[in-house]
Formats: sequence, structure tokens, C-alpha cells
Amino acid sequence: MPVDHSGRRAALRRSMEANDLESLLVTDLLNIRYLTGFTGSNAALIVSIHDSPGREDNTVVCTDGRYVTQVADQVPDLRAVIDRASASYLLGGELAPRNASIGFESHVVTVDQHRAWTSLDSALNLVRSPGLVEDLRMVKDEHEVALLRDACRAADDAFAVLVERGSIAAGRTELEVARELESLMIEHGADGISFETIVAAGPNSAVPHHRPTSAVLATGDFVKFDFGALVGGYHSDMTRTLVIGAPQDWQKDLYALVLQSQTAGRDALAPGVSTASVDAASRSVIEEAGYGEFFLHGLGHGVGLEIHEAPGIARTSTGTLLSGAAVTVEPGVYFSGRGGVRIEDTLIVRDGGPELLTMTSKELTLV
Amino acid sequence: MPVDHSGRRAALRRSMEANDLESLLVTDLLNIRYLTGFTGSNAALIVSIHDSPGREDNTVVCTDGRYVTQVADQVPDLRAVIDRASASYLLGGELAPRNASIGFESHVVTVDQHRAWTSLDSALNLVRSPGLVEDLRMVKDEHEVALLRDACRAADDAFAVLVERGSIAAGRTELEVARELESLMIEHGADGISFETIVAAGPNSAVPHHRPTSAVLATGDFVKFDFGALVGGYHSDMTRTLVIGAPQDWQKDLYALVLQSQTAGRDALAPGVSTASVDAASRSVIEEAGYGEFFLHGLGHGVGLEIHEAPGIARTSTGTLLSGAAVTVEPGVYFSGRGGVRIEDTLIVRDGGPELLTMTSKELTLV
Repeated sequence: MPVDHSGRRAALRRSMEANDLESLLVTDLLNIRYLTGFTGSNAALIVSIHDSPGREDNTVVCTDGRYVTQVADQVPDLRAVIDRASASYLLGGELAPRNASIGFESHVVTVDQHRAWTSLDSALNLVRSPGLVEDLRMVKDEHEVALLRDACRAADDAFAVLVERGSIAAGRTELEVARELESLMIEHGADGISFETIVAAGPNSAVPHHRPTSAVLATGDFVKFDFGALVGGYHSDMTRTLVIGAPQDWQKDLYALVLQSQTAGRDALAPGVSTASVDAASRSVIEEAGYGEFFLHGLGHGVGLEIHEAPGIARTSTGTLLSGAAVTVEPGVYFSGRGGVRIEDTLIVRDGGPELLTMTSKELTLV
Repeated sequence: MPVDHSGRRAALRRSMEANDLESLLVTDLLNIRYLTGFTGSNAALIVSIHDSPGREDNTVVCTDGRYVTQVADQVPDLRAVIDRASASYLLGGELAPRNASIGFESHVVTVDQHRAWTSLDSALNLVRSPGLVEDLRMVKDEHEVALLRDACRAADDAFAVLVERGSIAAGRTELEVARELESLMIEHGADGISFETIVAAGPNSAVPHHRPTSAVLATGDFVKFDFGALVGGYHSDMTRTLVIGAPQDWQKDLYALVLQSQTAGRDALAPGVSTASVDAASRSVIEEAGYGEFFLHGLGHGVGLEIHEAPGIARTSTGTLLSGAAVTVEPGVYFSGRGGVRIEDTLIVRDGGPELLTMTSKELTLV
């Protein structure tokens, strides 16, 4: 399926129109990738409201000499200019209309960059315009969902092999298991890892964002895995918690509680629902069991070209879910010094109920 | 070897004094990691000039509830406060002196963040203070050099296995070879990859920053590898170019030229030397051969907690090399549609001549 970059730019123009912008200077590299397909490490893009699909004479991407060939290959449908200064070059030229409003990404542009731009020409009317492209990115198109599915599948397949091989075994270190899991993700189609893999054994499972150490996996302890694969720029995110050997009653009870909470959170996902109410649906299960104070973080987050992106799903979130949003649901309960459980899936919000992308089973014990 | 975070903060205080700052608000996460050891994804740090090693009552790190345990483990020598708002929380409290100069990292702080801070309290005197910590980070201490050595060794070892196994073979795709190399780096001690691995076969070797595709390696063609390992947060960076089978004369000549240029660049590395003159030493070899227009990029860059950091080594660079700087030297000549050669090492600038960290041989052919 070809990516419809032109359609994405058309959607951005509608948003610009609603915000009274004549042009938008896009400097966030992931936003440029989303809008054009360009993946280089230096770029700026001016999008003009006067253009339309097939006629984009005033919409121009700028990058430096390292990317002459790459920008021609990746962005055949836009004019590309080559200059190291990228954004400053575009703002200094005839593409940046004087005395008309030029939006800029004030949530990513630094104070120093902005200062340099305003010193270029006093007739430039730069308008703070945070998050316009990120708002579009919240709803994934079918091309993006396909990449997210592939990323989640690479993680699922890698974890299945890890289990089958008997690699999750007493005596192995967190680091050994984490590295093997990362290698397996790459073998199973990942371009890379989505974020630093968490393998947390025993008491370490009570640390929400533990980094793997030489701590040893032990029979009867929790082992928590939080990991993801990167495919075509898209991130998967999944957490599973296991016990090697026979779980104790407190472990079974804690696990059942978190699983019930996670199911409630997943069931609450629907277009038009407030993100705070999704958090509440999941969190209330844990609060009613008396463990609310041990659920230390928000319920989930959007996922896509970034591992954490809009929408946030937390107690204090203000947004509403849209159909096609890709989100995680990941409640956790952590008993410091003893152990913790988190269960996380990546899902797509859909009208008839969410589409689950992370398929690995949620058994507490290794079969 | 324990990391001397306290010594790094003492060095920062000397720099703050020279810049008439009473406090510095550090929000760049890598700078916070460098100064404290904290690796979480949300943090802010206030460093006060009134503190000294062992007495740091006014130097405080702030992070959120996910990192309560981690911040206590990683930063035992500083006061930690827990609040989601991190920087805004620190600026709103008694740690941020009113009517005295508080530096902030204007090269990383966004326009929107700065706006939110200035609205907190009109008595806050926020002063643009870009790059103070990055300047310190240019010179690596022995702990950092040890991690860079480990990262370079992981890449060297992985590449050696790739060669020994016969994995660089006609008929394999760029993507297959890139993934195998990445798996091997992780097997050989890398925590992850340093950046997206480049494997560029045949005409693709003429694209400086080619992304691996399903293009097939062929006998008689150039294959360019640019890759690195990540160890303890530190990045290695190395490029090698090979020919599978017997090279043609033009390939031998081109390779010899780039190798001569790279040697000249390495030989020019010395404390006190201008970075522009290092670029010139290497570039002049290629220019005198008549190929200056095909050397499309700068000669090198600093490397450490980031894959690209200060100092830049390019024609237009303005800085001077310091003893202990970690840099790359990577000239390249690219004939579009035909093939290109780049050779790159990571080195430490030293008084008696640079220390080479990337040990892989520079033979044009597979032995």
C-alpha cells in the first residue's frame, strides 16, 4: 500500500486554515517524515495553504548535501532545495510570505532557534502553532496500522521463541535475557528495538522502569518484560509478567487483579470516550481492591512514530479518543522490595471495540 | 571505576561562575544523566553555585512517581523531589532564587516551555545559557573513555564474526546483513545499536546515508557498512567499505585515495588544533586528486552520549580540539550511480597522537 503523503498534507492544510495560518514551518523530523516520507537527520518543510494535491509549488522541503539522492528518492512529489541551514534558509527566501502568518512548531522549536529566525527579517510574522501535525498523527491510517501490526508481530514472535527455547529460566541474568529478546526481535523482522528492553526479576519487578542488570531470574519470582519492536519507524509496546515455576497465592491474586484492571481498561476504549474515563475504568478496579497507591503511573499512551505520543491516558488527561488512535493500556501494581505486575497491550481504537495488536498470551506461568 | 558525578557538577559550577549565573536549570536528559547518573525519561535539575562537593543542599533533581526507586538508586548523593511537572515545579519553589540569574538551556528548551516558565513568577530572571554542559561533555573522563572503548569493541567483534561466518556474501540483501550485524553487536555486549545500521551495496554505496533495502550484494561491487554499538549510554561509530571478490582498478584507486585522506585527517588530530584545519588536512588530499566536489559532507563529529555531539569537524567549524575529545574522522567520495567509499574511525584526541578505538582492519577486500 503506497503511503498517501499528499493526503496527509491536504489534511494539514485544513487544520492550518482553521488556525488562520498561511504557511506552516515544520521542523520536527518525525512530523516531516509523516508528511513527506523523508527520513534524513536534517530537514525543514514549508507547507503553504495555497497549494493542493498535485499542485504543490509553494510546499518545499530543505535538507543538506548528504541527502541529495535520498530526498529525491523519498520525496519525489515535492520540490527539494539543498542548504545546510534548512529552516533559516526557507524563512530567508521567497517561500516565507512577509506580513502573513507563518506558523511554527513552538512545542519543539528551541528558544535559540526562534531567536535566530526572528533576527532574519523583521517582517516575518511567526505564530506559535504547537501540535498541528501531532493531532493528525493521533489517528493512524491503514498504512500506519499495517506497520504497527508488523512491529507487534515481531515482538510477539520473538517472545514466543524466547519461551519455546526455555530462555526464561532460573539462573539467567536479566541482561542476558533482555539481549536475547532484542536479538530475536531483529531476527523476526524488527528494524531495531522500540525502546530499551525491560527485564525485571524478583524485587526488581516492583520498579516500573527498571533497567536490566546482572540480577538472576529465580524460581517462584515474578519476571516482568516490557519491550517493543520498531518496523518502518513505528513502535510496538507490550508488557508481560510471569512466574517461573509455581506461583504463590499472593502472586496469583495480584496478577488476577491487574489482569482484571487491564481488561476493564481495554473494554473502555471507544471512539468519543474521554481518556480520563478509560484511566478511571481500569484504575477503579485496583483502587476498590485497596491498592490504588501502588499504581504509580498513568494507564497508557499513544504510540506510533514515537514510543510515547498523543493521546495520553491518565487521571489528569483531557482529551477524547478518536477512531483509529493507537494506544497502550498498561496498569501495574508494585510492592516495593517484593515484586510487581504490569500487563500491557498495544491496541487500535475502533467503533466495534478495540483491535488488539499484541497477541502474546497473558498466562501467569510458562506452559 | 565509579563515575565522578560530583566532580562533573563542580566543573559546571566553575563554568556557571564564569557566566555570572547563580543557578542553572538543566532540562536536557542527557545532560542530567551526565551530571547525576539518572536515566529516567522525565527530569529536571537545579544546580546552585552556592554548593560544593559533599555539601549540595541547593542542588536538587526532580522526577515523577515512576522513578521514585530509580532516582534513589542512581542519584544517592543529591536530594530528589517527586513531581510530574519537574522543571516548572523546581522553578516554582524556593530553590529558584528570585531576582538572581537562573540560567536555562535555551538551545534545548522550547518556546512553549519557556513561555510557561516565564508566566510562573515575574521575579524569575531566566538567562539564556546554551551549551554549558555540552562544553564539559566534549572532554571525556576515563569512565567515559572506558565505555567508548567497550562500545567500539562490541562493534569490532560483531563485524569480525560477520566476516568470519562468510555473511558478507554475494546474493544476500542489505537488510539481512544489517540485521545480522545488529544482532551480533548485541550478542557481543552492546546494550543496543548506536544508530540505524547502514549497509549499502553497489550503486547504493554512493548514497552517504543510505538505509538498507532488499538490494542484493554482488561480486565486484562496493559494500559500505556504517554502524555502531551502544554501551552504557555511549555510542561507537565506524564505517568500512569492502569489495566482494576482486576489485577493479578504479575501485582500488578510489579506496587508496580515501584511505590516504582518512590517514591525513587522523594524523592532524591534536590538542589545540583548529577543527577546520583537521577537515582541511583530510579534504585537501581529495581536492588535490580532483574529487573535492564528490566529498559531500563534513569530516567528522564528536561522539559520546549522543551519536553526533560537539565538536563538529567541518570546513566551516570554528572550534579547537581539546585533549580527551572523542571524535570521528570519516572522509568519503561518492560517484552517483556507480559507487562510493567512506572510511571512518572513532578516536580520542591525545597529546602524543590520537588513540584509535575502532580496531577493525581497513583492507579493501575480504581475506
